[in-house]
Amino acid sequence: MAEEVKLFRTWSTPFALRIVWALKIKGVEYETIFEDLYNKSPSLLQYNPAHKKVPVLVHNGKPISESYVILEYIDETWKETPLLPEDPYERAMARFWAKFGDDKVFTSIFGGVFVKEGKEQEEAMVEAMENLQFLEEELRGKKFFGGERIGFVDLALGWLANLISILEDVAGLKIVGEDKFPLLSAWMKDFADSPIIKDNWPPRDKMIAKFQALRDAKLAAAASK
Amino acid sequence: MAEEVKLFRTWSTPFALRIVWALKIKGVEYETIFEDLYNKSPSLLQYNPAHKKVPVLVHNGKPISESYVILEYIDETWKETPLLPEDPYERAMARFWAKFGDDKVFTSIFGGVFVKEGKEQEEAMVEAMENLQFLEEELRGKKFFGGERIGFVDLALGWLANLISILEDVAGLKIVGEDKFPLLSAWMKDFADSPIIKDNWPPRDKMIAKFQALRDAKLAAAASK
Repeated sequence: MAEEVKLFRTWSTPFALRIVWALKIKGVEYETIFEDLYNKSPSLLQYNPAHKKVPVLVHNGKPISESYVILEYIDETWKETPLLPEDPYERAMARFWAKFGDDKVFTSIFGGVFVKEGKEQEEAMVEAMENLQFLEEELRGKKFFGGERIGFVDLALGWLANLISILEDVAGLKIVGEDKFPLLSAWMKDFADSPIIKDNWPPRDKMIAKFQALRDAKLAAAASK
Repeated sequence: MAEEVKLFRTWSTPFALRIVWALKIKGVEYETIFEDLYNKSPSLLQYNPAHKKVPVLVHNGKPISESYVILEYIDETWKETPLLPEDPYERAMARFWAKFGDDKVFTSIFGGVFVKEGKEQEEAMVEAMENLQFLEEELRGKKFFGGERIGFVDLALGWLANLISILEDVAGLKIVGEDKFPLLSAWMKDFADSPIIKDNWPPRDKMIAKFQALRDAKLAAAASK
Protein backbone atom coordinates (compact mmCIF):
# COMPACT_ATOMS: atom_id res chain seq x y z
CA MET A 1 0.00 0.00 0.00
CA ALA A 2 1.28 3.47 -0.83
CA GLU A 3 1.81 5.57 2.29
CA GLU A 4 -0.68 8.39 2.70
CA VAL A 5 0.36 10.97 5.27
CA LYS A 6 -1.61 14.14 5.93
CA LEU A 7 -0.87 16.87 8.45
CA PHE A 8 -3.61 19.17 9.67
CA ARG A 9 -2.04 22.35 11.05
CA THR A 10 -2.39 26.11 11.17
CA TRP A 11 0.17 28.43 9.62
CA SER A 12 1.32 29.68 13.03
CA THR A 13 1.07 27.11 15.83
CA PRO A 14 4.39 25.91 17.22
CA PHE A 15 2.80 22.60 18.25
CA ALA A 16 2.42 21.68 14.59
CA LEU A 17 5.92 22.85 13.66
CA ARG A 18 7.28 19.99 15.76
CA ILE A 19 5.55 17.58 13.44
CA VAL A 20 6.65 19.37 10.29
CA TRP A 21 10.28 19.19 11.45
CA ALA A 22 10.01 15.53 12.49
CA LEU A 23 8.48 14.44 9.17
CA LYS A 24 11.10 16.35 7.18
CA ILE A 25 13.98 15.03 9.34
CA LYS A 26 12.64 11.52 8.70
CA GLY A 27 12.17 12.22 5.00
CA VAL A 28 8.45 11.36 5.07
CA GLU A 29 6.40 12.79 2.20
CA TYR A 30 3.13 14.32 3.35
CA GLU A 31 0.29 16.57 2.38
CA THR A 32 -0.45 19.70 4.42
CA ILE A 33 -3.96 20.86 5.23
CA PHE A 34 -4.02 24.39 6.64
CA GLU A 35 -6.88 24.88 9.08
CA ASP A 36 -8.59 28.08 10.11
CA LEU A 37 -9.41 27.56 13.81
CA TYR A 38 -12.29 30.04 13.55
CA ASN A 39 -13.84 27.87 10.85
CA LYS A 40 -12.68 24.31 11.44
CA SER A 41 -13.05 21.80 8.64
CA PRO A 42 -15.39 18.79 9.01
CA SER A 43 -12.29 16.60 8.59
CA LEU A 44 -10.57 18.14 11.62
CA LEU A 45 -13.69 17.71 13.75
CA GLN A 46 -13.97 14.10 12.61
CA TYR A 47 -10.30 13.27 13.16
CA ASN A 48 -9.92 14.98 16.54
CA PRO A 49 -13.40 15.05 18.13
CA ALA A 50 -12.00 15.09 21.68
CA HIS A 51 -9.99 18.31 21.33
CA LYS A 52 -10.91 19.72 17.90
CA LYS A 53 -7.36 21.05 17.69
CA VAL A 54 -4.33 20.85 15.44
CA PRO A 55 -1.91 19.24 14.88
CA VAL A 56 -3.50 16.02 13.65
CA LEU A 57 -1.49 13.49 11.67
CA VAL A 58 -3.47 11.10 9.51
CA HIS A 59 -1.48 8.07 8.39
CA ASN A 60 -3.24 5.78 5.91
CA GLY A 61 -6.59 7.06 7.15
CA LYS A 62 -5.80 6.72 10.87
CA PRO A 63 -5.74 9.97 12.86
CA ILE A 64 -3.37 10.81 15.73
CA SER A 65 -3.57 13.94 17.88
CA GLU A 66 -1.44 15.59 20.58
CA SER A 67 1.95 16.71 19.33
CA TYR A 68 4.13 14.51 21.58
CA VAL A 69 1.97 11.48 20.89
CA ILE A 70 2.43 12.19 17.18
CA LEU A 71 6.21 12.62 17.59
CA GLU A 72 6.50 9.24 19.34
CA TYR A 73 4.34 7.65 16.64
CA ILE A 74 6.55 9.10 13.91
CA ASP A 75 9.66 7.87 15.73
CA GLU A 76 8.25 4.35 16.09
CA THR A 77 6.89 4.17 12.53
CA TRP A 78 9.78 5.66 10.54
CA LYS A 79 12.83 4.47 12.41
CA GLU A 80 15.61 6.17 10.42
CA THR A 81 17.22 9.15 12.21
CA PRO A 82 15.73 8.40 15.65
CA LEU A 83 14.41 11.33 17.65
CA LEU A 84 14.45 9.63 21.05
CA PRO A 85 17.64 8.05 22.40
CA GLU A 86 17.81 4.25 22.85
CA ASP A 87 18.52 4.01 26.56
CA PRO A 88 15.34 3.84 28.69
CA TYR A 89 16.63 6.38 31.22
CA GLU A 90 17.68 8.84 28.52
CA ARG A 91 14.30 8.35 26.84
CA ALA A 92 12.59 9.13 30.15
CA MET A 93 14.67 12.29 30.53
CA ALA A 94 13.79 13.39 26.99
CA ARG A 95 10.07 12.87 27.67
CA PHE A 96 10.42 14.68 30.99
CA TRP A 97 12.03 17.81 29.52
CA ALA A 98 9.60 17.88 26.61
CA LYS A 99 6.68 17.86 29.06
CA PHE A 100 8.44 20.42 31.25
CA GLY A 101 8.74 22.65 28.20
CA ASP A 102 4.97 22.67 27.66
CA ASP A 103 3.78 22.56 31.27
CA LYS A 104 6.20 25.06 32.78
CA VAL A 105 8.25 27.00 30.22
CA PHE A 106 5.52 27.64 27.66
CA THR A 107 2.95 28.38 30.36
CA SER A 108 5.09 30.79 32.36
CA ILE A 109 6.18 32.72 29.27
CA PHE A 110 3.19 32.57 26.99
CA GLY A 111 0.44 32.55 29.62
CA GLY A 112 2.45 34.70 32.06
CA VAL A 113 5.17 37.15 31.05
CA PHE A 114 3.70 37.84 27.61
CA VAL A 115 0.11 38.64 28.56
CA LYS A 116 0.48 40.23 32.01
CA GLU A 117 1.54 43.65 33.21
CA GLY A 118 3.08 45.22 36.30
CA LYS A 119 3.49 43.10 39.40
CA GLU A 120 1.83 40.03 37.84
CA GLN A 121 4.28 40.19 34.96
CA GLU A 122 7.23 40.49 37.36
CA GLU A 123 6.09 37.38 39.21
CA ALA A 124 5.63 35.47 35.96
CA MET A 125 9.11 36.59 34.89
CA VAL A 126 10.66 35.15 38.09
CA GLU A 127 8.94 31.85 37.36
CA ALA A 128 9.98 31.91 33.69
CA MET A 129 13.61 32.59 34.65
CA GLU A 130 13.60 29.63 37.05
CA ASN A 131 12.18 27.37 34.37
CA LEU A 132 14.62 28.55 31.70
CA GLN A 133 17.51 27.99 34.13
CA PHE A 134 16.66 24.27 34.17
CA LEU A 135 16.98 24.21 30.38
CA GLU A 136 20.27 26.13 30.57
CA GLU A 137 21.65 23.43 32.89
CA GLU A 138 20.42 20.67 30.59
CA LEU A 139 22.50 22.10 27.75
CA ARG A 140 25.78 22.06 29.68
CA GLY A 141 28.38 20.22 27.56
CA LYS A 142 25.99 19.74 24.64
CA LYS A 143 25.27 21.57 21.38
CA PHE A 144 21.68 20.35 21.20
CA PHE A 145 19.44 18.85 23.87
CA GLY A 146 19.80 15.67 21.82
CA GLY A 147 23.62 15.90 21.98
CA GLU A 148 25.49 16.43 18.71
CA ARG A 149 22.30 16.42 16.68
CA ILE A 150 18.69 17.54 16.96
CA GLY A 151 16.44 15.16 18.89
CA PHE A 152 13.06 14.91 20.58
CA VAL A 153 13.67 17.66 23.16
CA ASP A 154 15.02 20.04 20.53
CA LEU A 155 11.82 19.64 18.50
CA ALA A 156 9.73 19.95 21.66
CA LEU A 157 11.43 23.21 22.71
CA GLY A 158 12.01 24.44 19.18
CA TRP A 159 9.30 27.11 19.48
CA LEU A 160 11.60 28.98 21.88
CA ALA A 161 14.19 29.52 19.18
CA ASN A 162 11.83 31.66 17.12
CA LEU A 163 8.83 32.66 19.20
CA ILE A 164 10.78 34.12 22.13
CA SER A 165 12.23 36.93 20.02
CA ILE A 166 8.78 37.63 18.56
CA LEU A 167 7.21 37.82 22.02
CA GLU A 168 10.13 39.99 23.18
CA ASP A 169 9.61 42.40 20.28
CA VAL A 170 5.86 42.61 20.84
CA ALA A 171 6.01 42.99 24.62
CA GLY A 172 9.11 45.20 24.57
CA LEU A 173 11.16 43.21 27.06
CA LYS A 174 14.00 40.69 27.18
CA ILE A 175 13.27 37.12 28.28
CA VAL A 176 16.25 35.03 27.18
CA GLY A 177 19.29 37.31 27.58
CA GLU A 178 22.71 36.07 26.43
CA ASP A 179 24.25 37.12 29.74
CA LYS A 180 21.84 35.04 31.83
CA PHE A 181 21.39 32.15 29.42
CA PRO A 182 24.50 31.84 27.23
CA LEU A 183 23.97 28.14 26.43
CA LEU A 184 20.27 28.53 25.69
CA SER A 185 20.97 31.61 23.55
CA ALA A 186 23.58 29.68 21.55
CA TRP A 187 21.19 26.74 21.19
CA MET A 188 18.38 29.02 19.97
CA LYS A 189 20.68 30.32 17.24
CA ASP A 190 22.10 26.89 16.30
CA PHE A 191 18.67 25.31 16.24
CA ALA A 192 16.95 28.12 14.32
CA ASP A 193 19.69 28.10 11.67
CA SER A 194 19.80 24.31 11.23
CA PRO A 195 18.89 22.71 7.90
CA ILE A 196 15.17 21.86 7.67
CA ILE A 197 14.40 23.95 10.76
CA LYS A 198 15.36 27.25 9.17
CA ASP A 199 13.22 26.67 6.08
CA ASN A 200 10.02 26.10 7.99
CA TRP A 201 9.48 29.09 10.27
CA PRO A 202 6.22 31.00 9.76
CA PRO A 203 6.71 34.51 8.27
CA ARG A 204 8.00 36.80 11.04
CA ASP A 205 5.92 39.85 10.07
CA LYS A 206 2.69 37.83 10.15
CA MET A 207 3.70 36.33 13.51
CA ILE A 208 4.43 39.78 14.98
CA ALA A 209 1.01 41.04 13.84
CA LYS A 210 -0.76 37.96 15.21
CA PHE A 211 0.89 38.04 18.62
CA GLN A 212 0.50 41.81 18.91
CA ALA A 213 -3.25 41.39 18.39
CA LEU A 214 -3.35 38.50 20.82
CA ARG A 215 -1.52 40.44 23.53
CA ASP A 216 -3.70 43.52 23.04
CA ALA A 217 -6.84 41.38 23.37
CA LYS A 218 -5.60 39.68 26.54
CA LEU A 219 -4.60 42.95 28.19
CA ALA A 220 -7.91 44.56 27.23
CA ALA A 221 -9.83 41.61 28.66
CA ALA A 222 -7.82 41.75 31.91
CA ALA A 223 -8.38 45.52 32.21
CA SER A 224 -12.16 45.19 31.81
CA LYS A 225 -12.56 42.49 34.46
CA MET B 1 24.49 -4.87 40.47
CA ALA B 2 21.48 -5.47 42.69
CA GLU B 3 18.48 -3.45 41.58
CA GLU B 4 17.55 -0.63 43.93
CA VAL B 5 14.10 0.81 43.31
CA LYS B 6 12.54 3.48 45.48
CA LEU B 7 9.16 5.13 45.07
CA PHE B 8 8.47 8.53 46.62
CA ARG B 9 4.72 8.98 47.00
CA THR B 10 2.03 10.26 49.33
CA TRP B 11 -0.54 7.98 50.87
CA SER B 12 -3.37 9.48 48.82
CA THR B 13 -2.32 10.73 45.39
CA PRO B 14 -3.74 8.78 42.45
CA PHE B 15 -0.75 9.78 40.29
CA ALA B 16 1.50 7.62 42.47
CA LEU B 17 -0.95 4.71 42.54
CA ARG B 18 -0.31 4.21 38.83
CA ILE B 19 3.31 3.52 39.63
CA VAL B 20 2.49 1.22 42.55
CA TRP B 21 0.23 -0.84 40.29
CA ALA B 22 2.76 -0.95 37.44
CA LEU B 23 5.63 -2.08 39.68
CA LYS B 24 3.48 -4.77 41.28
CA ILE B 25 2.13 -5.97 37.91
CA LYS B 26 5.74 -6.23 36.70
CA GLY B 27 6.81 -7.95 39.92
CA VAL B 28 9.45 -5.32 40.71
CA GLU B 29 10.55 -5.17 44.36
CA TYR B 30 10.77 -1.61 45.66
CA GLU B 31 10.97 0.50 48.76
CA THR B 32 8.27 3.09 49.48
CA ILE B 33 9.02 6.52 50.91
CA PHE B 34 5.88 8.31 52.06
CA GLU B 35 6.17 12.07 51.69
CA ASP B 36 4.30 14.80 53.54
CA LEU B 37 3.81 17.52 50.92
CA TYR B 38 3.59 20.16 53.66
CA ASN B 39 7.06 19.16 54.81
CA LYS B 40 8.90 17.73 51.81
CA SER B 41 12.03 15.68 52.40
CA PRO B 42 15.43 16.92 51.17
CA SER B 43 15.54 13.78 49.00
CA LEU B 44 12.33 14.70 47.17
CA LEU B 45 13.58 18.24 46.54
CA GLN B 46 16.87 16.85 45.27
CA TYR B 47 15.29 14.21 43.04
CA ASN B 48 12.57 16.41 41.54
CA PRO B 49 13.83 20.02 41.73
CA ALA B 50 11.74 21.13 38.74
CA HIS B 51 8.35 20.20 40.20
CA LYS B 52 9.04 19.17 43.84
CA LYS B 53 6.18 16.70 43.48
CA VAL B 54 5.50 13.00 43.84
CA PRO B 55 5.60 10.42 42.38
CA VAL B 56 9.34 10.06 41.87
CA LEU B 57 10.87 6.71 41.01
CA VAL B 58 14.55 6.29 41.80
CA HIS B 59 16.18 3.36 40.00
CA ASN B 60 19.77 2.60 41.00
CA GLY B 61 20.16 6.20 42.14
CA LYS B 62 18.64 7.78 39.01
CA PRO B 63 15.42 9.76 39.56
CA ILE B 64 12.44 9.92 37.18
CA SER B 65 9.40 12.17 37.65
CA GLU B 66 6.01 12.62 35.95
CA SER B 67 3.77 9.58 36.27
CA TYR B 68 3.41 8.75 32.55
CA VAL B 69 7.14 9.20 31.99
CA ILE B 70 7.70 6.79 34.88
CA LEU B 71 5.17 4.30 33.46
CA GLU B 72 6.91 4.29 30.08
CA TYR B 73 10.28 3.86 31.80
CA ILE B 74 8.98 0.92 33.80
CA ASP B 75 7.54 -0.63 30.64
CA GLU B 76 10.83 -0.23 28.76
CA THR B 77 13.01 -1.41 31.65
CA TRP B 78 11.05 -4.43 32.90
CA LYS B 79 9.59 -5.90 29.75
CA GLU B 80 7.52 -8.77 31.19
CA THR B 81 3.75 -8.16 31.13
CA PRO B 82 3.85 -5.14 28.79
CA LEU B 83 1.63 -2.18 29.63
CA LEU B 84 1.65 -0.58 26.19
CA PRO B 85 0.61 -2.56 23.11
CA GLU B 86 3.23 -3.37 20.44
CA ASP B 87 1.67 -1.72 17.41
CA PRO B 88 2.74 1.95 16.96
CA TYR B 89 -0.80 3.13 16.25
CA GLU B 90 -2.23 1.32 19.27
CA ARG B 91 0.60 2.73 21.39
CA ALA B 92 -0.29 6.21 20.15
CA MET B 93 -3.94 5.67 21.04
CA ALA B 94 -2.99 4.48 24.54
CA ARG B 95 -0.82 7.55 25.09
CA PHE B 96 -3.59 9.76 23.72
CA TRP B 97 -6.29 8.44 26.06
CA ALA B 98 -3.95 8.53 29.07
CA LYS B 99 -3.25 12.21 28.38
CA PHE B 100 -6.94 12.85 27.75
CA GLY B 101 -7.66 11.33 31.15
CA ASP B 102 -5.43 13.86 32.91
CA ASP B 103 -6.01 16.92 30.74
CA LYS B 104 -9.77 16.63 30.29
CA VAL B 105 -11.41 14.02 32.54
CA PHE B 106 -9.47 14.68 35.73
CA THR B 107 -9.61 18.45 35.23
CA SER B 108 -13.33 18.66 34.49
CA ILE B 109 -14.24 16.44 37.44
CA PHE B 110 -11.66 17.27 40.05
CA GLY B 111 -11.11 20.92 39.19
CA GLY B 112 -14.71 21.44 38.05
CA VAL B 113 -17.68 19.40 39.24
CA PHE B 114 -16.15 18.58 42.62
CA VAL B 115 -15.14 22.08 43.74
CA LYS B 116 -17.80 24.28 42.16
CA GLU B 117 -21.39 25.07 43.00
CA GLY B 118 -24.55 26.17 41.20
CA LYS B 119 -24.31 27.21 37.58
CA GLU B 120 -20.53 26.76 37.43
CA GLN B 121 -20.93 23.21 38.65
CA GLU B 122 -23.63 22.52 36.08
CA GLU B 123 -21.36 23.73 33.29
CA ALA B 124 -18.47 21.62 34.59
CA MET B 125 -20.82 18.62 34.74
CA VAL B 126 -21.75 19.02 31.06
CA GLU B 127 -18.06 19.05 30.19
CA ALA B 128 -17.32 16.06 32.43
CA MET B 129 -20.17 14.07 30.84
CA GLU B 130 -18.81 14.80 27.36
CA ASN B 131 -15.35 13.68 28.41
CA LEU B 132 -16.60 10.52 30.11
CA GLN B 133 -18.63 9.67 27.00
CA PHE B 134 -15.39 9.40 25.02
CA LEU B 135 -14.13 6.84 27.54
CA GLU B 136 -17.44 4.96 27.37
CA GLU B 137 -17.00 4.65 23.59
CA GLU B 138 -13.40 3.49 23.99
CA LEU B 139 -14.58 0.56 26.10
CA ARG B 140 -17.04 -0.75 23.50
CA GLY B 141 -16.30 -4.44 22.93
CA LYS B 142 -13.57 -4.56 25.57
CA LYS B 143 -13.38 -5.53 29.24
CA PHE B 144 -10.43 -3.24 29.95
CA PHE B 145 -9.05 -0.30 27.98
CA GLY B 146 -6.09 -2.61 27.37
CA GLY B 147 -8.41 -5.36 26.00
CA GLU B 148 -8.62 -8.61 27.93
CA ARG B 149 -6.15 -7.45 30.53
CA ILE B 150 -5.13 -4.27 32.33
CA GLY B 151 -2.81 -1.99 30.35
CA PHE B 152 -1.40 1.52 30.24
CA VAL B 153 -4.73 3.32 29.86
CA ASP B 154 -6.30 1.30 32.68
CA LEU B 155 -3.52 2.38 35.03
CA ALA B 156 -3.79 5.95 33.76
CA LEU B 157 -7.54 6.12 34.37
CA GLY B 158 -7.51 3.85 37.40
CA TRP B 159 -8.15 6.75 39.80
CA LEU B 160 -11.69 6.95 38.38
CA ALA B 161 -12.52 3.49 39.69
CA ASN B 162 -12.08 4.55 43.28
CA LEU B 163 -11.97 8.32 43.53
CA ILE B 164 -15.21 8.99 41.64
CA SER B 165 -17.35 7.33 44.30
CA ILE B 166 -15.45 9.22 47.02
CA LEU B 167 -16.01 12.54 45.25
CA GLU B 168 -19.65 11.58 44.69
CA ASP B 169 -20.12 10.82 48.39
CA VAL B 170 -18.45 14.05 49.51
CA ALA B 171 -20.20 16.32 47.00
CA GLY B 172 -23.55 14.52 47.25
CA LEU B 173 -24.06 13.97 43.54
CA LYS B 174 -23.75 11.27 40.89
CA ILE B 175 -21.09 11.60 38.23
CA VAL B 176 -20.73 8.16 36.63
CA GLY B 177 -24.25 6.69 36.61
CA GLU B 178 -24.75 3.10 35.41
CA ASP B 179 -27.59 4.23 33.16
CA LYS B 180 -25.48 6.78 31.31
CA PHE B 181 -22.17 4.94 31.42
CA PRO B 182 -22.83 1.19 31.61
CA LEU B 183 -19.46 0.16 30.14
CA LEU B 184 -17.47 2.61 32.25
CA SER B 185 -19.38 1.54 35.37
CA ALA B 186 -18.63 -2.13 34.66
CA TRP B 187 -14.97 -1.27 34.01
CA MET B 188 -14.73 0.68 37.28
CA LYS B 189 -15.93 -2.38 39.15
CA ASP B 190 -13.81 -4.88 37.22
CA PHE B 191 -10.71 -2.74 37.55
CA ALA B 192 -11.19 -1.90 41.23
CA ASP B 193 -11.69 -5.58 42.09
CA SER B 194 -8.73 -6.88 40.06
CA PRO B 195 -5.81 -8.64 41.76
CA ILE B 196 -3.06 -6.17 42.79
CA ILE B 197 -5.35 -3.18 42.15
CA LYS B 198 -7.79 -4.05 44.91
CA ASP B 199 -5.05 -4.46 47.54
CA ASN B 200 -3.56 -1.02 47.01
CA TRP B 201 -6.36 1.52 47.41
CA PRO B 202 -5.85 4.13 50.12
CA PRO B 203 -8.22 3.74 53.13
CA ARG B 204 -11.65 5.01 52.10
CA ASP B 205 -12.47 6.77 55.40
CA LYS B 206 -9.22 8.74 55.30
CA MET B 207 -9.86 9.65 51.65
CA ILE B 208 -13.39 10.85 52.44
CA ALA B 209 -12.05 13.05 55.26
CA LYS B 210 -9.26 14.43 53.08
CA PHE B 211 -11.48 15.29 50.12
CA GLN B 212 -14.22 16.71 52.34
CA ALA B 213 -11.67 19.11 53.85
CA LEU B 214 -10.31 19.94 50.40
CA ARG B 215 -13.76 20.70 48.98
CA ASP B 216 -14.71 22.81 52.02
CA ALA B 217 -11.52 24.84 51.64
CA LYS B 218 -12.07 25.41 47.90
CA LEU B 219 -15.70 26.47 48.37
CA ALA B 220 -14.75 28.79 51.24
CA ALA B 221 -12.00 30.37 49.14
CA ALA B 222 -14.38 30.87 46.20
CA ALA B 223 -17.03 32.40 48.47
CA SER B 224 -14.61 34.94 49.94
CA LYS B 225 -13.34 36.20 46.56
